[in-house]
Amino acid sequence: MKVKFSITSILIFLFGFNIYAQQALWGGQQIISPDVHDNNTVTFRFNAPKADTVKITGDFLPTRKINTQWGEFDGPGTALLKKDNAGIWSFTSQPLESDLYSYSFIVDGVTSTDPNNVYMIRDVASITDVFIVGGGKADLYSVQDVPHGSVTRRWYESPGNDMHRRVTIYTPPGYEESNDKYPVLYLLHGMGGDEEAWIALGRTSQILDNLIAQGRAKPMIVVMTNGNVAQKAAPGESPEGFYKPSMQLPHTMDGKFEETFIDVIKFVEKSYRVKADKASRAIAGLSMGGYHSLHISRYYPNTFDYVGLFSAAIMPNESVKSKVYDNFDETLKVQMDNGYKLYWIAMGKTDFLYKSITDYRAKLDDLGMKYTYVETEGGHTWTNWRVYLSEFVPLLFK
Amino acid sequence: MKVKFSITSILIFLFGFNIYAQQALWGGQQIISPDVHDNNTVTFRFNAPKADTVKITGDFLPTRKINTQWGEFDGPGTALLKKDNAGIWSFTSQPLESDLYSYSFIVDGVTSTDPNNVYMIRDVASITDVFIVGGGKADLYSVQDVPHGSVTRRWYESPGNDMHRRVTIYTPPGYEESNDKYPVLYLLHGMGGDEEAWIALGRTSQILDNLIAQGRAKPMIVVMTNGNVAQKAAPGESPEGFYKPSMQLPHTMDGKFEETFIDVIKFVEKSYRVKADKASRAIAGLSMGGYHSLHISRYYPNTFDYVGLFSAAIMPNESVKSKVYDNFDETLKVQMDNGYKLYWIAMGKTDFLYKSITDYRAKLDDLGMKYTYVETEGGHTWTNWRVYLSEFVPLLFK
Repeated sequence: MKVKFSITSILIFLFGFNIYAQQALWGGQQIISPDVHDNNTVTFRFNAPKADTVKITGDFLPTRKINTQWGEFDGPGTALLKKDNAGIWSFTSQPLESDLYSYSFIVDGVTSTDPNNVYMIRDVASITDVFIVGGGKADLYSVQDVPHGSVTRRWYESPGNDMHRRVTIYTPPGYEESNDKYPVLYLLHGMGGDEEAWIALGRTSQILDNLIAQGRAKPMIVVMTNGNVAQKAAPGESPEGFYKPSMQLPHTMDGKFEETFIDVIKFVEKSYRVKADKASRAIAGLSMGGYHSLHISRYYPNTFDYVGLFSAAIMPNESVKSKVYDNFDETLKVQMDNGYKLYWIAMGKTDFLYKSITDYRAKLDDLGMKYTYVETEGGHTWTNWRVYLSEFVPLLFK
Repeated sequence: MKVKFSITSILIFLFGFNIYAQQALWGGQQIISPDVHDNNTVTFRFNAPKADTVKITGDFLPTRKINTQWGEFDGPGTALLKKDNAGIWSFTSQPLESDLYSYSFIVDGVTSTDPNNVYMIRDVASITDVFIVGGGKADLYSVQDVPHGSVTRRWYESPGNDMHRRVTIYTPPGYEESNDKYPVLYLLHGMGGDEEAWIALGRTSQILDNLIAQGRAKPMIVVMTNGNVAQKAAPGESPEGFYKPSMQLPHTMDGKFEETFIDVIKFVEKSYRVKADKASRAIAGLSMGGYHSLHISRYYPNTFDYVGLFSAAIMPNESVKSKVYDNFDETLKVQMDNGYKLYWIAMGKTDFLYKSITDYRAKLDDLGMKYTYVETEGGHTWTNWRVYLSEFVPLLFK
């Protein structure tokens, strides 16, 4: 039964909530964008009667080559929208493979979000609209009608950084009602990311909820740290206020995060009902987070039975001096001799870090250090990292 | 010390993270917008060389009258930006009072977010950019260098709705390390809102952290429910996926939420270390949430010692039939006879609900039911609701 509202009560609430909501409600025709059709094509619509050109750019479009002073690279694809008589521009995609996609409009050269889509994700300093095409792998990224874990933002003390720092923690369905102890996956973001990256862009809580409900993953706690030790918290979540985020921060790859990672482990093992043993600890990360996972697992060489390197960077910059990076091969050998259950490396064929992982695999082969290698299509993208997480998590704590 | 990166490593990471980040980094000049100056004026900038007009609309601008078929109302103010030779449009505001403000650009008639501002909040179906002017009341809304509570999104069972439902819970600093029991504030949103409204628009966790750090509020748990019982969760957080949110939902003001509110209380008192007595329970809400608070506290007339009605709606629609709304005056009298410590009513002078609260106060006076009445400038806005929360919370659990 729908409740009927009188004109008066509707008016009251139309005017009630805020001036922008009114604009949204009164903006003329109801525009649906993006409009995901049953055949997996997607129509995008944008109301701009006066614009000369409206384009869309997004990761669902074929990339195009862009030339820079350093050479030719794959750039984001674009497509032109077409205007109808009412001034509504639209574009319909090809049928898309199941995934979570990002896009923006470009209106007379100016990048714009989609005013009809409230689902957006921040990646470093950019906000893009997102949508999901279901019926395949992205069903794991969607909220399904299954038991849901809890997601908590909280602060922990890091004596090694003389700082309180923010962390995002997923606890699996049933954690609060149980007396069981749980294994822990430490999940690390890439450069420009923070403790919001994996939960927002990575869809970690949805992937975990769904894999656990399907019986494909053990219930586990997932700890999503902030790997930029110069930051207390993600942009906007620290006393620094609302500043413009940047990709490059000091102390991200100079050993400090690896050296002080013990603070995170101590906090988690003190604060949650966890199994505090090597067999119940996993560490994984993407790009810089893969680099951190590699070096943390080597620097604390008897701590993790599971290591995941997703599109990982490998070597520190030559100018960096830290005891964390001393004796690379020797400490890897110690890690190997101590034993572990899984050393999982995933890389996309067109990733710009492809060669560095090839070199690293050669090093591991030389050392006789076992690993599992997964090579996929594609490059250095969240599309791949969500897949890697979905494939890595079922291998843990078996 | 800043780590130096080689051109190669910079290139690697520039190209690493995503195609949009590249755009942000390579978009030519670095534009700062909004740019909050020391004298509390704010400059907004927007890069649109081809646009004919760029305006800004926001709650920091004087409102203007708009005519509708139902009469004349206050509408959002606008201001014109001015273009420089490089095609960058800009506008500088008057010195602004300390607050959290929202705004959007209007480019040739099309509403647009600010591509240089990653701080946005969703209100119903609209996304607006936000900024904070400090040095006054908004210092309470900012993250300060004080101990921080934890914010958890979790799901609870509501047998009365035959549903699992999502809820946002703030626990104060020290909760996890303590064995103490805490009082609870149930904090309810308005129409079109959900369990994200108070934490995002209301800045609840910042306000609580800061008031507690200043010794002005007792450490307490704050439970932010979803008052739309037709929804399991906020838009995008339920199995319904990414749909366009709307203001009007069924079953928001038909008694069902009030009737089943006992499910929330039972969940909280089972799941958290709380003082499960009337002296340790408060309920408050804005607009529809004030209406819910009024009716819940009357329907469970011996449950809450503290009630807060912020810009509250009062009467159900005439067509609504629910046992919750039967015997309004009689149950208020029962609530009065049972006793309570605070019945706090706040209303803005220009609020469209001003008359209904005047009528309600007359009813309370007739009954001899004591209340505290706070009348402020302004209307039905988050600006007021953040102030009301900041004033209400220090009165609780004394």
